[in-house]
Amino acid sequence: MLTRRHFIERIAAIGGASLAYEAMTGLGMLEAATQTPFALRGDGKGTRIAILGAGLSGLTVAYELGKLGYKCQVFEARQRPGGRAHTIRRGTVSEEDGPTQTCSFDEGQYFNCGAMRVPYHHTTTLQYARELQVPIETFALTAENAYFYQTKASALANRRVRLREVRADLEGYVAELLSKAVSEEKLNEAVTSADREQLLEYLRGAGALDDERRYRGSPLRGADEPRSPDGSLRYTPLALSDLLGSRMGGYLDLGFQYQETMVQVVGGTDRLPQALAARIKDKITYQAVAKEMHQSERGVSVVYADRSGKLHKVEAEYCVCAIPLPLLAALETDFSPEIKQRIASVPYSAAGKMGLQFKRRFWEEDDHIYGGASKTDMEISQIVYPSSGYLTQKGVLVGYYLQGQNGRPIGDRTPAERQALALEQGARIHPQYQAEFETAFSVAWHRVPWSKGAWSNMGAALRKELSQPLGRVYLAGDHLNMNAWMQGAFESARQVATAVHARAGAERSSAVAVGL
Amino acid sequence: MLTRRHFIERIAAIGGASLAYEAMTGLGMLEAATQTPFALRGDGKGTRIAILGAGLSGLTVAYELGKLGYKCQVFEARQRPGGRAHTIRRGTVSEEDGPTQTCSFDEGQYFNCGAMRVPYHHTTTLQYARELQVPIETFALTAENAYFYQTKASALANRRVRLREVRADLEGYVAELLSKAVSEEKLNEAVTSADREQLLEYLRGAGALDDERRYRGSPLRGADEPRSPDGSLRYTPLALSDLLGSRMGGYLDLGFQYQETMVQVVGGTDRLPQALAARIKDKITYQAVAKEMHQSERGVSVVYADRSGKLHKVEAEYCVCAIPLPLLAALETDFSPEIKQRIASVPYSAAGKMGLQFKRRFWEEDDHIYGGASKTDMEISQIVYPSSGYLTQKGVLVGYYLQGQNGRPIGDRTPAERQALALEQGARIHPQYQAEFETAFSVAWHRVPWSKGAWSNMGAALRKELSQPLGRVYLAGDHLNMNAWMQGAFESARQVATAVHARAGAERSSAVAVGL
Repeated sequence: MLTRRHFIERIAAIGGASLAYEAMTGLGMLEAATQTPFALRGDGKGTRIAILGAGLSGLTVAYELGKLGYKCQVFEARQRPGGRAHTIRRGTVSEEDGPTQTCSFDEGQYFNCGAMRVPYHHTTTLQYARELQVPIETFALTAENAYFYQTKASALANRRVRLREVRADLEGYVAELLSKAVSEEKLNEAVTSADREQLLEYLRGAGALDDERRYRGSPLRGADEPRSPDGSLRYTPLALSDLLGSRMGGYLDLGFQYQETMVQVVGGTDRLPQALAARIKDKITYQAVAKEMHQSERGVSVVYADRSGKLHKVEAEYCVCAIPLPLLAALETDFSPEIKQRIASVPYSAAGKMGLQFKRRFWEEDDHIYGGASKTDMEISQIVYPSSGYLTQKGVLVGYYLQGQNGRPIGDRTPAERQALALEQGARIHPQYQAEFETAFSVAWHRVPWSKGAWSNMGAALRKELSQPLGRVYLAGDHLNMNAWMQGAFESARQVATAVHARAGAERSSAVAVGL
Repeated sequence: MLTRRHFIERIAAIGGASLAYEAMTGLGMLEAATQTPFALRGDGKGTRIAILGAGLSGLTVAYELGKLGYKCQVFEARQRPGGRAHTIRRGTVSEEDGPTQTCSFDEGQYFNCGAMRVPYHHTTTLQYARELQVPIETFALTAENAYFYQTKASALANRRVRLREVRADLEGYVAELLSKAVSEEKLNEAVTSADREQLLEYLRGAGALDDERRYRGSPLRGADEPRSPDGSLRYTPLALSDLLGSRMGGYLDLGFQYQETMVQVVGGTDRLPQALAARIKDKITYQAVAKEMHQSERGVSVVYADRSGKLHKVEAEYCVCAIPLPLLAALETDFSPEIKQRIASVPYSAAGKMGLQFKRRFWEEDDHIYGGASKTDMEISQIVYPSSGYLTQKGVLVGYYLQGQNGRPIGDRTPAERQALALEQGARIHPQYQAEFETAFSVAWHRVPWSKGAWSNMGAALRKELSQPLGRVYLAGDHLNMNAWMQGAFESARQVATAVHARAGAERSSAVAVGL
């Protein structure tokens, strides 16, 4: 008779992590990850799991399987846990190749050079923060007073405009135009007469239209300064044509991953992996660089070099590879040539960030910007303001956050050259840069030897293929789930933990059955 | 020769606080309040100022004039400073008439029963927080996952929908309709052909339109649950007609005072007035109830009753009345009958709030709502979720926040009746109320003897009139500036401090000139 348990185990053996996870969830054997703590049941009976990488995925696999009685060992090349969930603080030494940077921010100042924010729907990430009692706070995603600054040919080029101006004006014109079409009965097929009046009323509110259904500016965009001589408020909206030509409207369309409420870890993202690592600290070996991984029918052996270069061999029943694919590709393994080629084929993004410490928070004091980000078509792309420590004296802002391949040309420069660029371009938005700058620290993820990039770029088919077990080896990481987000790392880890648990249970049962 | 100084003094004597403030700012004698700390210059030379009320306005006048050497005395009827900038915590005793409530929240749980948030453009409020080193944090205004719940006849009645659904769907349909009008060239006069393609491109992004320029749902609204059998995402937008009929679009139009970034005082709003009071603590007399105020050509005398009912008479050169108008109307004064009538004529709003403590933060755990507010057409009007303490066990949410006169019918009930109503209606949005509720505390501002309402409702002409000095008496408070906001209280206080300082200087000069 095929029991539920056997069904899951067979699915796990055949279909790999993702399918087993979905099957268990669907069958009610595992409560939905979005509602409650992850609750695998059963006993790992000391089955040994070698885990490569103490990033969020590797830590989570060790933490979850450890709860069940598996004997997990995590091997991490760095001296710290967390991978790209990292925070730069005073004394942090750069991990990049090239000139060494040592962070000289003031005590208490920091920026998150990798993962920095969590939307409300990343429920797995939030569940771990809750379970590990890591405090979170609001990440102020939207600051209507932040700037847009375009430099390319357009009527609005080389001029600071505020987000609120762009948003209110675009929405106002759209409402005005649609009001016009509706009231002149040019959309009769599309809008019933019953809806017409209500639509016009909605548009009047949404676009702050006047009694003639014209958009002439609104308090939402901000009044002109200085006020008119009689003290009344005046508005000078940007022209629709100029707004469209500047393409700044595109910056308003942030997408689902950037939906509010967003939160962040109080005191820095690294407190989340640190809390995980604290739960399994006797299981992590730092400065352990994996060199080889070989499989037999019964187990996996991993060879790693310790700090002094001495090699050690570790035996386990299963191995979880929670390291970036370029590092996995460099490992000596007995994967098939096809698999090796596919692993090596995945390009990684060269994103990077620059933290700039200033003597005072001029963006708050002078510009009235609290959190949020200014956007530009200059190379720096955006300036992200801190969402905490408001009104205090000093602050660190993210002077650029380059995404995708845009980080490569800047990241390939020296830290000093990057800093010069961030200061020069940033000063066009904030002239206060010049007087207030103190010290900088930048990270170019593609140059960090133990990351080799910020996130992967992989098609769905390859992702699916690499989510299957490679013999007794399971890959884990955000690259196999929700790419570039902590949520992906946690979810991938849960899927792998589920699959390993199901398979190990099945294998222990059959070993007993044949008297092994 | 008319010096600058004399000019200001004459303006102050003639035009009152507001005009003097603007003149000094305009002439560069006072730096703009939005940029730097308030910096009146000169010496108050011990001129005595009697200040009625230790709300934000009264405290600020005493603080600012005290810096200059004025001898300020503040008389406050309550045992605490802050007026409506108040926070309910364990042990707080209600100030209302009727049955006494004593707050039994857990230690550390609180809600702000009055002022609770500060938009980024309330720069004077923020400046005081900075100057007084009162920490602030983000107030999460927008939680896209909060609910709309309408009960009135509409296709969407008695159904929970999420803010993100309403917003994305309305914006999607608007973009689709305007796309249609533009692409079918029905708005030729209004949109040039040069703009047409760029407008269509903008609308495609803003409305998440598909390749046929149709709105069929988008990730921004959220995908249907459960997913389709093949795991793909499906969307079922609400019908445009239903959205318009429900009038929920009106809730999206929050206005300038609700623009992001919004912030709040860490730990409760009352820490702001407490910080002010700490700077002038020897100048405040609590439980001092003003009874009479009389003027001569040279000064003002105030009679107040102390805790035991014993009367005291205080002499001063000027008096600042920073108490609500209904309380001022009840004072024995020698104001003209017309002025008395006008002061007594101003209606005050009956706004109120209900704090509900729950065993667990089900709105975060189950509903994935962090901060923000759910809106409804039930009497409770809205549920405001806390913007701090995320992921902790217990929480206090605002179970209703009634604005304007809507607070009267509920506020007129007993606390127990109010609680029953908040729980019953709130449970229609959050069924978890029933199992998780612990304890409640409500405030009906119109029933608080030393407030007599939440905010005033006064026309511009009367406001202007009451902003003039009434002899040697100056009125101060949010009711004379930005009504119902802390910013109004601070700004009014600065205007009054400026006017009093200018006039006192002029009077001291002329007293010297005539040898007094």
